[in-house]
Amino acid sequence: MSELIRKGELAKQASYKLSNISTNVKNEALRKIAQLLIEKESQIIEANSIDIENARSKGVSDALIDRLSLNKKRIQGMAEGLLEIAALPDPIGEVVSMWKRPNGLLIGQKRVPIGVIGMIYEARPNVTADAAGLCLKSGNVVILRGGSEAINSNKEIVTIMNEALEMAGIPSGAVQLIEDTSRETATQMMKLNKYIDVLIPRGGQGLIQSVVQNATVPVIETGTGNCHVYVSSDADLEMGERIIVNAKTSRPAVCNSAETLLVDEEIAQEFLPKALQSLRDLNVEIRGCEKTREIFSDCVAATEEDWYKEYIDYILAVKVVKDIDEAIEHINKYGTRHSEAIVTKDYSKSQRFLDEVDAAAVYINASTRFTDGGEFGFGAEIGISNQKLHARGPIGLKELTTIKYIIYGNGQIR
Amino acid sequence: MSELIRKGELAKQASYKLSNISTNVKNEALRKIAQLLIEKESQIIEANSIDIENARSKGVSDALIDRLSLNKKRIQGMAEGLLEIAALPDPIGEVVSMWKRPNGLLIGQKRVPIGVIGMIYEARPNVTADAAGLCLKSGNVVILRGGSEAINSNKEIVTIMNEALEMAGIPSGAVQLIEDTSRETATQMMKLNKYIDVLIPRGGQGLIQSVVQNATVPVIETGTGNCHVYVSSDADLEMGERIIVNAKTSRPAVCNSAETLLVDEEIAQEFLPKALQSLRDLNVEIRGCEKTREIFSDCVAATEEDWYKEYIDYILAVKVVKDIDEAIEHINKYGTRHSEAIVTKDYSKSQRFLDEVDAAAVYINASTRFTDGGEFGFGAEIGISNQKLHARGPIGLKELTTIKYIIYGNGQIR
Repeated sequence: MSELIRKGELAKQASYKLSNISTNVKNEALRKIAQLLIEKESQIIEANSIDIENARSKGVSDALIDRLSLNKKRIQGMAEGLLEIAALPDPIGEVVSMWKRPNGLLIGQKRVPIGVIGMIYEARPNVTADAAGLCLKSGNVVILRGGSEAINSNKEIVTIMNEALEMAGIPSGAVQLIEDTSRETATQMMKLNKYIDVLIPRGGQGLIQSVVQNATVPVIETGTGNCHVYVSSDADLEMGERIIVNAKTSRPAVCNSAETLLVDEEIAQEFLPKALQSLRDLNVEIRGCEKTREIFSDCVAATEEDWYKEYIDYILAVKVVKDIDEAIEHINKYGTRHSEAIVTKDYSKSQRFLDEVDAAAVYINASTRFTDGGEFGFGAEIGISNQKLHARGPIGLKELTTIKYIIYGNGQIR
Repeated sequence: MSELIRKGELAKQASYKLSNISTNVKNEALRKIAQLLIEKESQIIEANSIDIENARSKGVSDALIDRLSLNKKRIQGMAEGLLEIAALPDPIGEVVSMWKRPNGLLIGQKRVPIGVIGMIYEARPNVTADAAGLCLKSGNVVILRGGSEAINSNKEIVTIMNEALEMAGIPSGAVQLIEDTSRETATQMMKLNKYIDVLIPRGGQGLIQSVVQNATVPVIETGTGNCHVYVSSDADLEMGERIIVNAKTSRPAVCNSAETLLVDEEIAQEFLPKALQSLRDLNVEIRGCEKTREIFSDCVAATEEDWYKEYIDYILAVKVVKDIDEAIEHINKYGTRHSEAIVTKDYSKSQRFLDEVDAAAVYINASTRFTDGGEFGFGAEIGISNQKLHARGPIGLKELTTIKYIIYGNGQIR
């Protein structure tokens, strides 16, 4: 039997047990994992150094080496993340609603775990602990499939986690790592409908698209954020500048950062020179439409392709639009339905933007950077969904659950 | 440009407009469709007769001819279904919850349409009106792809619907039929992620599995119900008999009918002879495990395969189990996570069954036949989901929606 089938089978079995484990046991397990990760940090760092060495000898980029690297501080961060998850309320068992039917049947919707979650991710080994923590707290079994670059780190982390889970009395198989990091095994995992209830890919666009294209298991698509800030003709221009600077530069590498600035023609002359200079001063490359370039010369010509791009870098596309109609049309055409903001003082424009822009999160007068489980008040998140099914926006504990109808009868037939 | 791309593009455009159409306009459109379907029933019956003739000349089964056939009464039924949908509350626009963050951001979850729904179904032309009605009411655009057998009927129905939609002021493209019924076009439609937000297949297991296997667009899987009734040792045996007879025979062709009866060993001798005879009297074929056959001889030997089967017919598999542990294990192994029932007087067994059986709907002392949008009080349904993502159980209007975060700021940056 292949590793995948064996672990899938065990995961399914474990999921029935885990779904009814008490909150106290789950929290104790999370705290135990946090404790052991700290106690055994030297083992983790040792395993990690093998991964780094291997990566170096393959000549991978410094950026990837950085994502791959663990140190005392990062392990501390993983442990703290788990303690935070332990402190969050348990979503499982909540009866969301309950009603009585005319025939006397009492019907309730009870929140239950999804079952078995497959995580497919890349080189960041801290995702291993994060994902396991969120799945465990929400009563889900997790099958982890991290990138080959981090395999030694991941093995060590999962071994330590399992030691803690066993001490806490969590059923065996609740957290498993696929050690075969071949592409074929990943593809097989995407079709393991018998054992996996949902796949959550985390990583670059290539990884996510590969999962969406190949999976027969349902997927929660995370990630790509081609987000816009639209400064309308009646905006407080200082606020507009503050918001686009924040949305672009506070953390360009994340999905809720802005990639395109849209500006109403009426105020372009007044707004763009100062705002774009502030961005240039922060080393942001500007790629402008023709009108933008007439106003602000320190600017590359934007191509049609730029409107589609998620740079996740110090680059911003800028387009002058006629009015809110063109702005909304542009966003709905080129955006990835993640996070979109309007800066305006006009009530009816603000409402139109909320109603007509198709995105997970739509902002009036605020930075797109707030689309985040923590900022929304959900606590930790496993990613941000920009699909419409099941979970839209930050995927916190509640989004890792489903409902089950529980029906109390006394002999009813139909 | 292919029909599919052209219609997909139009659908996407229409979805932005339709998402903000008022409830009154949508209801008026539904009533108008109902009216025109009745007024033009002779045109529909004429088109339908071509389909029936074609089907007959291909020598298809009588059962398929029956599913395909429309008459005055069935068209009346379609119209009444639409009027019922018009009478249901509009799910769109509800702000499910709203909260203020410490930084002053006001964050709300607003219920919005999913966008563009692709329906892939078989020979029943009444699905055409049903699906269009539910999608329209929930603000969704629908792309219909019915079976080739019903193409003339579907074309006529969609033409009439579009006439009514135009009169009511619904944006063009809200309801479209793919007239090319080739398999290649269906497969292309399953990968039309750019224009379609979700696919809902309706039909036999072959169709549903083909969609699940081929689609890259997210799918809501409907249908297969291998449902069990478990009569425990402490059950009211008369209630047990009443429930299994109802669950098996009241409508064997639907997914919430029972396919396997599980009985505790302790009461098998007392319960089975009378209960199985009642089922035999209603022409139900019994396929029993060895112990069942010792007790009740008018019975075929069940094979391993029988435990997996959804007969949707007058056939029932019967297995004697040791206790509730074996019953739950059997259900979780062979079931399709649809609807499962226990008959018991014991409190703790009832609770264990609710907690440990993994299914969309779990019943204590009631027939599995109640898993239905109407019976649950949701009004009409577009199918019953037995996947865990997004919608579990009956898919009513609410399940055809998603949420959008609407965020009110006053200049917040992160």
